[in-house]
Order: sequence, then C-alpha cells, then structure tokens
Amino acid sequence: MTGPDAAPTWFGADWNPEQWDRGTWREDVELMVRAGVNLATVGVFSWSSLEPRPGELTLDWLVDVLDLLHEHGITADLATPTASPPPWLGVRWPETRSVTDTGVRMSHGSRNHFCPSSPVYRERCRWIVQALLDRCAGHPAVALWHVGNEYGQTCHCDLCAAAFRTWLAERYGDLATLNRAWGTAVWSQGYAGWDEVVPPRAAPYVHNPAQRLDFRRWVSDAQLELYLEQRRLIREVDPVTPVTTNFMGFFPGIDYRRWAPHLDVVSDDSYPDPADPGSVVGSAMTADLMRGLAGDRPWMLMEQAWSSVSWREHNVAKTPARMRREAFQALARGAVGLCWFQWRQAADGPERFHSALLPATGPDTRSHRAVRELGAEVARLGPLGGRPVAEVCLVLDWPSWWAGTERGLPSTRLDPLEQLRRWYAACWAAGVTVDLRGVEDDLSGYRVVLAPSAFLLEPAAAAGLRERVTAGAHLVLGPFSGVVDARSRILPPPLPAGLAELLGARVEEWLPLPEPVALRPGPDADLAGGTATTWAEWLSTDGAEVWLTFEGGPADGGPALVSRASGAGRISYLACVPDEDLLSRWLLGCLRTAGVAVAEDHPEGVEVVRRGEHLVVVNHAPGPRLLPLARPATDRLTGRRHEGVVPLDPDAVCVLIEEDS
Amino acid sequence: MTGPDAAPTWFGADWNPEQWDRGTWREDVELMVRAGVNLATVGVFSWSSLEPRPGELTLDWLVDVLDLLHEHGITADLATPTASPPPWLGVRWPETRSVTDTGVRMSHGSRNHFCPSSPVYRERCRWIVQALLDRCAGHPAVALWHVGNEYGQTCHCDLCAAAFRTWLAERYGDLATLNRAWGTAVWSQGYAGWDEVVPPRAAPYVHNPAQRLDFRRWVSDAQLELYLEQRRLIREVDPVTPVTTNFMGFFPGIDYRRWAPHLDVVSDDSYPDPADPGSVVGSAMTADLMRGLAGDRPWMLMEQAWSSVSWREHNVAKTPARMRREAFQALARGAVGLCWFQWRQAADGPERFHSALLPATGPDTRSHRAVRELGAEVARLGPLGGRPVAEVCLVLDWPSWWAGTERGLPSTRLDPLEQLRRWYAACWAAGVTVDLRGVEDDLSGYRVVLAPSAFLLEPAAAAGLRERVTAGAHLVLGPFSGVVDARSRILPPPLPAGLAELLGARVEEWLPLPEPVALRPGPDADLAGGTATTWAEWLSTDGAEVWLTFEGGPADGGPALVSRASGAGRISYLACVPDEDLLSRWLLGCLRTAGVAVAEDHPEGVEVVRRGEHLVVVNHAPGPRLLPLARPATDRLTGRRHEGVVPLDPDAVCVLIEEDS
Amino acid sequence: MTGPDAAPTWFGADWNPEQWDRGTWREDVELMVRAGVNLATVGVFSWSSLEPRPGELTLDWLVDVLDLLHEHGITADLATPTASPPPWLGVRWPETRSVTDTGVRMSHGSRNHFCPSSPVYRERCRWIVQALLDRCAGHPAVALWHVGNEYGQTCHCDLCAAAFRTWLAERYGDLATLNRAWGTAVWSQGYAGWDEVVPPRAAPYVHNPAQRLDFRRWVSDAQLELYLEQRRLIREVDPVTPVTTNFMGFFPGIDYRRWAPHLDVVSDDSYPDPADPGSVVGSAMTADLMRGLAGDRPWMLMEQAWSSVSWREHNVAKTPARMRREAFQALARGAVGLCWFQWRQAADGPERFHSALLPATGPDTRSHRAVRELGAEVARLGPLGGRPVAEVCLVLDWPSWWAGTERGLPSTRLDPLEQLRRWYAACWAAGVTVDLRGVEDDLSGYRVVLAPSAFLLEPAAAAGLRERVTAGAHLVLGPFSGVVDARSRILPPPLPAGLAELLGARVEEWLPLPEPVALRPGPDADLAGGTATTWAEWLSTDGAEVWLTFEGGPADGGPALVSRASGAGRISYLACVPDEDLLSRWLLGCLRTAGVAVAEDHPEGVEVVRRGEHLVVVNHAPGPRLLPLARPATDRLTGRRHEGVVPLDPDAVCVLIEEDS
Repeated sequence: MTGPDAAPTWFGADWNPEQWDRGTWREDVELMVRAGVNLATVGVFSWSSLEPRPGELTLDWLVDVLDLLHEHGITADLATPTASPPPWLGVRWPETRSVTDTGVRMSHGSRNHFCPSSPVYRERCRWIVQALLDRCAGHPAVALWHVGNEYGQTCHCDLCAAAFRTWLAERYGDLATLNRAWGTAVWSQGYAGWDEVVPPRAAPYVHNPAQRLDFRRWVSDAQLELYLEQRRLIREVDPVTPVTTNFMGFFPGIDYRRWAPHLDVVSDDSYPDPADPGSVVGSAMTADLMRGLAGDRPWMLMEQAWSSVSWREHNVAKTPARMRREAFQALARGAVGLCWFQWRQAADGPERFHSALLPATGPDTRSHRAVRELGAEVARLGPLGGRPVAEVCLVLDWPSWWAGTERGLPSTRLDPLEQLRRWYAACWAAGVTVDLRGVEDDLSGYRVVLAPSAFLLEPAAAAGLRERVTAGAHLVLGPFSGVVDARSRILPPPLPAGLAELLGARVEEWLPLPEPVALRPGPDADLAGGTATTWAEWLSTDGAEVWLTFEGGPADGGPALVSRASGAGRISYLACVPDEDLLSRWLLGCLRTAGVAVAEDHPEGVEVVRRGEHLVVVNHAPGPRLLPLARPATDRLTGRRHEGVVPLDPDAVCVLIEEDS
Repeated sequence: MTGPDAAPTWFGADWNPEQWDRGTWREDVELMVRAGVNLATVGVFSWSSLEPRPGELTLDWLVDVLDLLHEHGITADLATPTASPPPWLGVRWPETRSVTDTGVRMSHGSRNHFCPSSPVYRERCRWIVQALLDRCAGHPAVALWHVGNEYGQTCHCDLCAAAFRTWLAERYGDLATLNRAWGTAVWSQGYAGWDEVVPPRAAPYVHNPAQRLDFRRWVSDAQLELYLEQRRLIREVDPVTPVTTNFMGFFPGIDYRRWAPHLDVVSDDSYPDPADPGSVVGSAMTADLMRGLAGDRPWMLMEQAWSSVSWREHNVAKTPARMRREAFQALARGAVGLCWFQWRQAADGPERFHSALLPATGPDTRSHRAVRELGAEVARLGPLGGRPVAEVCLVLDWPSWWAGTERGLPSTRLDPLEQLRRWYAACWAAGVTVDLRGVEDDLSGYRVVLAPSAFLLEPAAAAGLRERVTAGAHLVLGPFSGVVDARSRILPPPLPAGLAELLGARVEEWLPLPEPVALRPGPDADLAGGTATTWAEWLSTDGAEVWLTFEGGPADGGPALVSRASGAGRISYLACVPDEDLLSRWLLGCLRTAGVAVAEDHPEGVEVVRRGEHLVVVNHAPGPRLLPLARPATDRLTGRRHEGVVPLDPDAVCVLIEEDS
Repeated sequence: MTGPDAAPTWFGADWNPEQWDRGTWREDVELMVRAGVNLATVGVFSWSSLEPRPGELTLDWLVDVLDLLHEHGITADLATPTASPPPWLGVRWPETRSVTDTGVRMSHGSRNHFCPSSPVYRERCRWIVQALLDRCAGHPAVALWHVGNEYGQTCHCDLCAAAFRTWLAERYGDLATLNRAWGTAVWSQGYAGWDEVVPPRAAPYVHNPAQRLDFRRWVSDAQLELYLEQRRLIREVDPVTPVTTNFMGFFPGIDYRRWAPHLDVVSDDSYPDPADPGSVVGSAMTADLMRGLAGDRPWMLMEQAWSSVSWREHNVAKTPARMRREAFQALARGAVGLCWFQWRQAADGPERFHSALLPATGPDTRSHRAVRELGAEVARLGPLGGRPVAEVCLVLDWPSWWAGTERGLPSTRLDPLEQLRRWYAACWAAGVTVDLRGVEDDLSGYRVVLAPSAFLLEPAAAAGLRERVTAGAHLVLGPFSGVVDARSRILPPPLPAGLAELLGARVEEWLPLPEPVALRPGPDADLAGGTATTWAEWLSTDGAEVWLTFEGGPADGGPALVSRASGAGRISYLACVPDEDLLSRWLLGCLRTAGVAVAEDHPEGVEVVRRGEHLVVVNHAPGPRLLPLARPATDRLTGRRHEGVVPLDPDAVCVLIEEDS
C-alpha cells in the first residue's frame, strides 16, 4: 500500500455533482483546476442517486464524474453512500430506522436515520457498495476510499438489544459474570436471562453506570463493524488504495482509539468556532489527537469550513487570513491533506448556508479569490514531509472520558475534556509540542506523561505507568484519577489505585468546592501558591513531598499537590483544579526539570511546530510579535532570510528552513 | 351582505353560559346591559354541552340564551363549537386526535386535540354545525358567525401524511418535479414513491427546509379547508350575516394572508403583555396588520384581556387606564368592535384566573366599574367611520417569515419579526401611519415600501417591486433579502435576486458579527454613522451610492448601506442591523425625501392616527405631553376646544375634530 | 406495641450486604459495633437477590445477615424489597412497568419502574413479602419493618386509568357529579362515559386543574394502598414491631398527611444541601414537619448523607462538624433515631459516589473517625425523652400546595413552599419553636396560627379557623389565601372565602407586580413600612384595620395588610410579599402580642429547642455567639456549668439541663 506522504499535499473538497446539471459539472472542474484542487470527495450522500429504487442502479453519472475529474488531473476520494439511506429503505423496512431511548423511531427527511444492527440495512449497504466497487474500483481517478460519513449514531431498538447481548456474551461468557461485572446487586438489577438485557432505555432515574459504559463501547464497536464490513469488500477488489472514514475530533460517541488502526489515512472533520477565543488552541489539540491516532500512518483534514458553518446559533465566519492560519497549523502538525466541506455551496437542503470553496454568489468574489491564493501557495510549497516529534504526552482514553461524564459523580464541573484542554493550553502557550495518546499506548518515548483525568485506570494500565516512572519519566496525574476500573466500579483503596504506594500518599475524600480556596506553598517545594476552584481532595501522605496545601475550605490544611521521586523518575498528583497561572508555572516546571526544552520567552499567541526540516510559525495573536531564532533561517513562503528574530505581523505564517549551525 | 361599518361599535365579550346556572344568566345579561355590551360571543367551547353523547342533541339551552340576549337588545356572535371536541370523539375514534412529530397522540383533558385530516372529525364537525344552523340560523340575535377558534394546530399522523401528499401532488404534479423542487439529491432524500413522503417527523438531524416549508403551507391550507367547509354550510342557509374566525396577531402557524379573503370581518385576539415596554407599539402593529389583511372589509378585536391573562409565568395586569388606551388605539387604527375574553370570569378550568369584564369578585369592584365607564364612553362616541390611510407600507409574508426562522441559517439572531418590529417602531415613534402588506399585494398606493426582511423573494415578486421603483416609489430592503425562492432554495446570483442590477450592487457574503462594529458615513450621502450589531454582509458595487460603510469586523471597509435612484423612484439596501437611532434617522429621511409627512417635533410616546374625520390621540408616555396642532380642534370625548397645542396628561385620550382651515 | 421512645437512640444506616462477600460482612458488623451502630436497615433493594428468578427463593443469606447482626447486638430495620422489581418482572409482564404522560413505558436498568395498578406487580409484591415474613418475622434482630422505599411514582397507563376511574366513582358516585365537580363545561370536556376518564396525559395545552388535582390525590392514595397492603401482611404475623416507610421531607408527590396515621414511626430521608445557605433552616423545618406528622408517635431520620450525596450537579460535602450540628438539630426537634444512607459506600451502581459511614477509602480516614465520635457521643447521651412543645403553628396542606403550583395561576413566583419557608425562617431566627400542621388538624393548642399560603380552603376548614379566632388565637393569612375549594374552583366572593366577613375586608383583584413597590404604615397600626415584591392585591375594607398600604404600583393607595380583633382573638391578612425584615418584624410582633415568648436578644444563627427537660443548643453561625440563660444550666455533653450566658464557638452543640429557679 502506498501512503500519500510523498505525494503533493491534498487540496480539495467534497463535491456533490448529483445536485447540479452537467453544465455546472464542467464549470466546477475548470474552476477546481484554477483553484489548485487535486482531490474531490464524491458520493458521500449519493445513495438515492445511485439506487433511486430498490435494486435499480444508476451509476453512469458517477463514472462520468470520475472520468471528468481524471481528465482534469484531479483525483477522487470515492465515498460509499451508506451514511444516509434513501427514503424507500426506511419506508419498506421500518426496522432499518434507529430508535431513541424513549422509543421514538426516527423518520427520514434528514440523514443518518439507520439502525446499525438491522440485517436489512447492512445487506443493502453491502449490495450498493459492491455495485459501486464493480463499476468504480480501479478507476484511475480513485486515490482514496471514504467509507460512510461521520459514524456516530446510537440506536436502542430490539435488534440493537439483541446485538448488544451477543457482544456482552462474548465479553463476559455467562450471565453470572455479567451480573458481577455490572454490580447488579445494586437496586435489584440481577438478570435472570440474557433476554432481559437491554440498552439503557428511558427509566425513572439514573442508570447502572456499568451498563451505560458497556453500551457506549458496544455502540462504537457496532459501528466499527459497519465500517470494517465495507473495508473488507473494498480490499477484496482493491488491495492498494488507502481507505478512510472521517472522524470528528473529540467526538464522544465513538472510541477512535479502537477505530484508528483500521484506517490507512486518519481523516478528520474540523470545525473550530471563530467566535470562540479558545478554538485556535482547540484545533491544534485536535490535530495532535489525529496525529497520535494515526501513529506512523498519515492524517489529513477531510472537512473544514472555508468561511462559516450553518449549524450554530450564530455562525461567525473565518476571515481568509484565519483560514490560512488554520491550514498551516494543520500542515505544521503533520497533515498530508487539506480538504473542505464543500466545493460548491449547495442551493438546497439544510446546509445550503454552509460556506464552500465556491460560494453561492459565484467565483468573482473576495472569498473565492482567497481560495485560489491558498491553493497556489500550498502547491508551491509542496509536501512538507516528516512529522512533529514530542517529548511530552497527554493521555486521553474514551472509556475514561465516558465514565467521567456520567451522572452520579461528585461534580459535573470536573469535565475530563476541559481539564485536558487546560493542560494542553499551558503547553501550547509555551510552544511545547505534545502528543495525545491512550494510557495503554507505548509511552516509552516520553520524558513527561501528563494524565489530567485518568479517572478509569485498570490495574494493568497503572502497572504500565509505574514502569514509565521507574524508567525515568515524570508521571503527572490530575485530580480524581485512578478511581474506577473498566466497569466503572470504585477500585479498592488506597487510591489513586495502583499508584498510591509509589506516590506515598492516598486519597481519603473527594470534596467539590462550594467556592474557591487559596493554595499555599507546601513544605517540600519551591512553588508559589494560587487558587483552587471546583474541586479539592483530602489526602493523607506517607512519604510524598507536599508541594501545595489548601488554605480554607473542606480540605483546609491538607495537601493539594504531592510528588515523589521514584526509580529514575517521579510521580506527582494534583488534588485540585488550580488557576491557569499556577497550572502553567507548575506544568512547565515539571517539563523543564524533566529536560524538555521550554523557551523562556515564547511570544504569546505564536504557534511554532517543527515538522521534519521545517519550522512552521503561525501568529495567531491580534498584534505583531517577535519570534527569537536560535539559528538564521529562511522562510520558504517569502524567500526572506531571518537572523536572531522573525518579525511577525498579525496572521503571519512562515515555513522556515534553519541553517546548520 | 351588510357590513358592520355603519352600525354602533361592537362592545362585548365571550360568554359561556353553559358553565353557569340560569339564575346567573339573567344576572349576566342585566349586568351586560348596564355595561353597554351589545355583542356576546357564545358557543365557542360548547360541543360537549350541545352533543353530550354522539348524536344526542341538547340545543335548547343555546336557543334560550339567544332569546335572552335578544330580549335585552344584545346581538350574538354565534360560534361553531368545533375547536374542542368532547372526550367521546377522541376515545371512540382515536384517529381524530392529533399526533406530535415524535408520534405522541394527544389526549383530551385540555383542548384543540383534533387532527385536521380525520374524516371522522370533519364529518362530526359538519354534523354538529348543521345541527346548530338548523336551530339557530335566522335567529334575530345572530349578528356574526364565529367559526371554530384560534385555528393553528399541527398534526403529523398518517392521515395528515396522506393529505399532505395529495396537496403536494396537486402542486407539483409528479414525483420527479417534487424531487427537484425539494432538492432531494441533498442527503439522499430522493423519493421513489408518493407513499414515502411524510410530514417532517422526528429525525436525527435537521430536516429538508423545502419539506418543512411546504408542510407549513399545508398545515395552514388544511385548516383553512376546515374553516371553509363550515363557512359553506353557513352560507347555504344564511347568505347575509358576516362570518369570521378569530386570528391571533403575528401567529406563525397560519398564513393569514391566504385566509383573510375568506373572512367577512377580520377579527383578532390581542394579548399585549403590560410587563413588556414594547407591547404598546406591538399592539399598534398588530392592529395595522389586521387592517391590511381586511383590505376594504372591517376588522375588530374579538378577544383581549380586560386586566391580566393567566397563561404567562407572571401575569401583570393592565390598569383600567391602560386598557382604555388600548381600546382607543384599536379604534384609531380602524377597529369596528372591541370585545374581550370573557364576560364572566370562569370559576373552573385552566383559565379561571384570566381576567374578565365581570370579575370573580363580583360587579361591585374597581375593575368592573371601569368596564361600565368605557362601555358608556364608546357608546356615546358612536362609530368613528372611515379608516386610516397610509403612504408607507411594511412588507411581511408568512412563507418568507417561516423560511427565515428555520434551522440552518447564518444566524438565529436576525429574526424577521424582530426586524419588522424595529422598522415599525421607528415609524410609530414619529407618528407615521403605515400599512402592513404582503409583497404580492397591490402596493401601488405607497410612496415608500419597506421590506425589512424579504428573505424569500420569488422572481415575480421582485419584478413587481422593480415596477414600483420605476413608477416612483422608494423600495427599502433590509439585510438578507432576496435570497431564496419559494422552495427556500438559494437563488442564482447576483443577489438580492431580481434587484441587484437595479441596485447596482451585489451581496457576496453573509457575515454574522461576533461583536458590534462602527458604521461610518459613506462617500455618497449625508447620513451620520452609528453602530451595527448581529449582522454584516460583504457587497461589491457597480453603480450604487454607498451611504454607510463598515469600520472593523469581517466586512471592514465594505458598504453597509447602498442606494440608487432608478426610474422615477429609488432602491436602497441595508446590509446590516443598525442601532435604533441610526435606523430611525435613515428611515425617516427616506420618508421625508419621498414626500411623506413626518412631523419634526412629534412628542415621544404619543400615538396619533387619523381615521376618517377624526384625529385620535393617545398618550402612552409616563409623563404629560404637548401635541402641536395644525388647526384648532375639538375633543369629542370632553367637548373641549384646543388651539395650537393639545395638553395631554399621562393616559390621556382625545378624539379630535379639526376645524376647516 | 412498644414505641422506641424509651429505647436508646437509634444510630445506624442502610446496609446492603448482598453487594459484598461474607468476609466483608464480618468486617462490617465489627466496624459497626466500634462505631456505635445499633440499627441496620437491610433488604431495601434486595428483590433480585431474594428471588433471582420468578418463584425461586434465596433467603438464606438474609437470615444469615440477621443472625450476624443479632450476634453483634445490632437490631435490624427489615425492609420489603418491592421498591425496585427485578428485570424479569418487567420483561415477562411489561404492564408492570410505569408509563409517562407521553406514553413512554419505563425500562428497567434504574429503579422504581413499577406501575402501582398492575395486578401482577401487586401479586408478586405480596408473594415476596409473604415469603420474607415466613422466614424472618419473629427473628430477634428485627426491631422495625421498612415497607418499600421512598414511595412517589406516577404512572399514566391504562391500568392506572381504570384504577383512577374506580377511585373517582367512589368519590363522586355518578358521572354527572364528576362533570360538575371538574367543571367540564369549560372547553367541552363533558364525559359521556366513565371509560372516557383518563389521567392527565400529554395534550396540546393546559389540563383541567380539577382533573390534575384529583389525579395527584389518586397517585398518593394508590401508593398508600400499596403500603397498606404490605402493612396488613406484616400485622397478620407480627402485631407488635413498629412499621414504617421512609418519607422525603417536603416531597410534592405524596400527601404525607394522609399517610402518616398508618406509620408507627414516621421516618424521613433528609438531604440538605451544604452549598445552600438556607438548608440549615430547611432541615429544621423538615424535622418540625415530621414531628407534626407523627403526632404522639415517634419520628426518626432514616436516611441522611454523612458527607456528600452524588445526585446533585455539584455535590458539596458536609464537614463532620456540620453533620454533628444536623444530628443534634434532629434530636432537639424530637427525633428518636439518626440513620444514614448508607453504612458501607457502594463500589457499584449510580450511587457509588454517595458518601457513607464507612467510606470507599476505608475506616482509617478522617471521615470515619468522626462517625465513631458521634456514635459514642449519642450513646453516652442516651435518649433525650419528651418532645418540643410549640405555641405557634404553620399550616401546610398538600392539596393546597398542589393547587397552588399548577399552571394557569396569576404568577409562578408566589410559590407556596417558598412562602412557608420565609415565614418559618422568621420564627427560626428568633428561636421560636413552631409546629407544622394541616388546616384540618386540631389547632386548639396554638396561640398563633400562621397560614402563609392557604390557597385551597374548604368552607369547613374556614369555619374551623373562625372558631380558633373566636377562641382567642391570632390567625395570620398570607396572600392568595381562601381562593379555591377542594376542586380548585374559585370560591364565591367575598374572598378570602369564609373569612372575609370576620376580617372586615375583601379581595377584589390579584395583581402580580411588575416591579417592587413601597409599603407605608397604615392608619391603624404602629408598624414601620418596607417593600413588597412579586405580588399585590386590591382590597376593599369594611371594618378591618389597615396596617400597611401600597405606595405605587397597580394597587397604589390600597391596603397591603389588614387586621381585625374578633371574639377573643384576631385575624390578619397580608395582601403582599413583604421584604424579609418587615415580615419578621410583623410576625414576631404578632407572636409577642399573642403571648408567645420571643427573646429580644436571640443570637443570630443559634438554634435553641426545648425537648423535655433538655435545652438543646446548636450554633450554626460562622462566628462565636453568646446565648443568654434565664437560669444556670449544665451541659451534659461537657459537664460544664453555665451561668447567665453560654459561650458558643462555631459548630458548638450543648445539651443543657437547667437548674430549678
């Protein structure tokens, strides 16, 4: 299988020619060529155009589209059309439509109304995909296969109940084991027969968290099987062309860690909100997540909005300069492709006010001229090659995230993703590149392992972390870590489970704070204090250094941050949510102590990432900035040489090649 | 058919004698006479009192009620009782009950739980109406027929699905045309058979906007047919007495423009919230809407609250003085009747804390004494005759309003009705009388046509507007106008569709604003700047004068207001939401330039409307005001003569007859 | 039947051994003994552990548990397991599961998903309870029977509809009477047959309030029958041991006044939120409610959280000192037992983060050490005996509360419970002990009867209140009192119904306030003014003294507080919601005038209650306080003697025995 790494950077978009006449097709491809487009995603929502009536195929138009692209030197990302079945499927076979937890069966009229467990849906999927492969596999335009679209539905129907049971039976073997694993002695939930096990449907009060957690695992796995089913069909006829399906960043509905190994190219749909000041950091973090999921395979942006989306309450647009910054941010963080939803703005449908590379107001517009400029710039630059290398990783696992956002926890205000964002932001602001990994990934390359929220921590994973510490890493745990096992059951004390002895401290109580309290420097470390909000814990220590203590509140006088050297490394545990400044001082101190290069004078709002031989620089700040340079460097975008410092206007982007020292 | 124009002003209320014993009836009519009541609406919710069991008629009491009214010189507005079927209907024929979009079939126990497509419901309606006509048509008390009540339900059941399909088939002919019109190539929604077409029922995501728009049209038309069915029955036996059904102001559920031609008297239920400072302007606007709907037919207030309603969270009461102001506001704007809900406050039911002309605490109360005073005053005054005449119109069309409030638009903060209110308020504050019309109405009489939100603008309508400009009118368009066609499909550029050439400018981008930006005077006009909130657009010009430009934000430097003289008239396009002061300055400038009389010194909060030979003046301001007079005038309410100026206390009302100059 | 009054104070918790292995059981009981636990509630959610498959009994473990407790000198509160049926019940008999008002049938997976009207559910309940009795009745450990758990479900299924009809038929006799009682002439709701009567299910608009009110009565009665059914089974085999079921304080779903007579011990689940500054007063008020419900029978706390709960958004923990204050607050107010949910913190299930006497982090914790301290202290103290005696009562009745919180009232901001809390808080702050009673209870012992919200006031109840006034009491009515009858129908004027003549004033209008208005001293009383928010009324007087008048607003110049001496007593009516200071001044003035002892210098935040020979003192204030003493007294907790004054540190608790003077 040839990866796209050495190929030109993909620059393209979704294209839905079935919505337009053939005259428009020709105009489209000619404008694509002028805009530098080299990849078009086709067929994503084409089922009813390919099979307008059950069994009646109309694929000629799609072949013509592929021919047309190929004639113009544009490659195709060819999608299977199974994300949204035609009305006839759901009308003739109502059981193919998904059902909410209150028993409402979804109607057609929108999209994605399928039940993943319906044999009819799955058989019709295989049939239309096979038909597509029969006609289009091997077409010279096809450079990428795109299976379905944005998987992530949940269904609670009886077919899903049966499939869920089968999955559980494979996992737990017998019912007695399931009853123990789910703790069904609580609230009289003991199952007397497999037929009694159902998805978490509407109930008078809170559900069994183990049931919910396994259901979320099954939802992810059930859809993974849909993806794999199609991937297998593709591989039967095309063993070479990479296969992908588009992820959605930090989407909670699917465990992307379990999916990513099955994608040849990890692709992402990224829609940062320009009205959110945190979205620049958010899109950087998402890019690092995708790189981490991809491992040694490539990743790309499959969808973005060129200007504004249409599904928010108030859809603020990106300026062309902002879009360019985001494009280079992704390239800096390893992307091999930049694609958008979509090429030509729709005239019909719920997304017709979603921006596109070619707006509804035509090509002679400010917006489209900027598309051509970026397309030309990306083409001139060519592929950057290589990928960013990090000495620090942040840990995120879907099951822990799921378990940490269920009902019945001490507080809804200790959101795992928010904690992750805060820790990531501290690194980003200092120009430190980090990877996002799972706790069971190979973490051996990292000097520092940051786990802001390792709520669910299996004994094996804890053992792996202990090994990392012994081997020399600094393991930094956030509050409420090491609490539950894979069934979301509270682990036996001492907590954090599997790490308390190493730490020399144990958690006695979780104490959500009614109001902020002061944090004072502890006796064992030189770290100025600050403020804790939201959360405190009561810890007793037996060997740990106390770096911070609570002053006031329910944990008054108790440790708020403890740490201990162990083997060649160190373990720290933060028992609170510190203010941003304190968090940053502490985390960057950990990094420096562990030997990670952290600039003292990193300019605010400037993103700097080393990818291969390139140093990519993006100024996201509202004002001009100066970036210190260790060595003279030349900007490949302008050809200018910089020495000592790079002056950066707002929105500035540089792709520097440093001189050997 | 004799209209009620020359008759005394109707002064009355809903009366529900079926809730009371006969002793109370007699007390009621005697008190009505003392209060000046001359019209009583009876029978609105009487179905179960008229037909307590299927086919069992008990109409005698109603005839007795009509007799009693007639004996006391009170006329009757006789209602058909079909708004709320008795429990027996829904229990015996469950399909007569409406269904939500999630499939929940409504229960009885409240009201209005009917399905408009149920043959059984419709047959039982015709039967009970025929029975009512057989007994009561020709009764000398009956002065008005009142069909149903506040039509506006939505049902998603299978019967409605079938009726919706029939309606669509009549509109589109064949399925291929429907598929094109609805743009079903988007998201794989192509219909393979008519049986697949359904109302927009619960779906995983946003619906097809064309489907939703047509469904809203059908909902309105389906209920119109219910109304017409009864109207036809009435007309078969009574060709003379006017027929009405009560509207609800700016109610989004029904397209009143399509209904109004079928009403002999347009009647409205008006419930301004005294706690809302904008409600005085709102009730004026509603009155103007009703006058516009009525055209050359009369309009009246069918329902109001005398004091407070009971369905808000916190039901602030009107003072008697405020109620009197609202009464004269309606008379000024052309009303031929003032009726209230209801005569005697209920003791039972969900509306028992809704105020009434006769409160639950009896006639010897401050509140009821004020009723008698107003009744006497209105009777003394007699009918005002004539109707207000406007040189300015504001355009509102239900389909455009519907399309402009669907999901998937650039912003939910550009609400069509709110824009209309802001433009109306600018005129109201200056004492300028306006009409509210539909874009396809005959607009030839207006010097200025204001279209604050003509989002949906069919080519034919745009052509009509162009003609108005050529003929000399000033057409003023608000932002996001001329964007979609009747299917809510984005129109081909240049935009505003059908008007861009005339304007000499075209819209390139819609740019919802993250924060307010400054507006600067443009090069071509003498208009001081201000601030834009919520919305901006990027325009390119080719001939248009630029009156305002954006300073800052995503449209920095671009035009915010453009205008161009054309033929004998002018066209302007506002590409933003300006602050209130700027909007007012600009709109009033447009009016003056177009020759509309706009007073320079109109006192704040004073409403002045000329109706026939009367100048009706209402002081809504919290303090005293002075109204300049062009000619000496005499107040018919007090007999006092005013020269040069009319001094107005708070709450003051005058009905002036000006002296010939 | 022997009451628990003379026995040691119960100190204990729910214990769920079915969630743990037998090794843990032994550890548990040994730790219980060390903590002073003398009562363990077992079996609450054990159905699926007792009957894992239909008809298959596994009760041995429970007998072993009772044996183990008994061996360790711990008594058992043995629960019937019927609150949460096993999955097999609902799967095999779907009709046993409850249905929402939108028709959604509840699933298992949580708890309490039963339909109270299902014959199968009720038969299986009787069967498992009988099986439990057959094995466990007479066991020497059993000191208390605990039927079900926290009754309060609502079901709208067809079985419930039928049961509701039967209940209505017993109450109203025939359908014509029901139609009159429910006022079904409003909105055409006349019932033609009993089969048409249904619970208030989803409808397009507001329901008939009489239907809703009777449905709430039926819901309470239907579940009471479930309780009684089990109580009768218990009494057949055990005529002696007290029977209880746990209440939930001011829970709106069940009319505890109708239930309480059937409980031998009134027991309550009390979960004040430490993050709510009003919760200390709230838990005092709840204790007084329970004492009033119990009458001459004992009451106890069945459930509390030792530290934090897990079902709030943000679960702030109690400090051990705060928990101790709450414990003594309950003892002061008459509790004979202090129990918690639960003994050992769960590892599984939705409540695993709910605190417990033995935390998940083990016995060697700050939290558990405090449990042992309190257990020892309570044991040392022994039972306090006696009960508090009040000269003042506050009136609360569930039907009035229900009627006063329905839709369709003048304002949602005049919440009956909030008014009750405000009046109670004024008494609490002054150290005045009050009882909470129903309006139809025997109120003859009270000098002052406070009715902050007697919205629903039947003629008989009004007559009873008149008698109290004549006999010498001061009856103080809050706004919107005496308005509706038991059907929620507005009573005939004059209002307040049955009391207006006595008062010499009548209400003409209810006038929710758009903004606060000033209250001025009236001509007839020496009471400084203040501010009224939310609510005003327009009153006319005929004999009443006017103590306060409105200045401004819709009732400008009218009386806001009227009062009149009558017989040996007095009646007052407050027509507004005064500010806290004015309310307090006025209420305490009423109390003093009526001869109730009210200290002039009661220290802020200090709770003082006389129970039998003990004066229990709790300092809830954040700072030290001084409590004046009438006579020297000795603190039984410390042995210290105080004279003149008791110095109180924050969190201080004293149990004083005063010396004879």
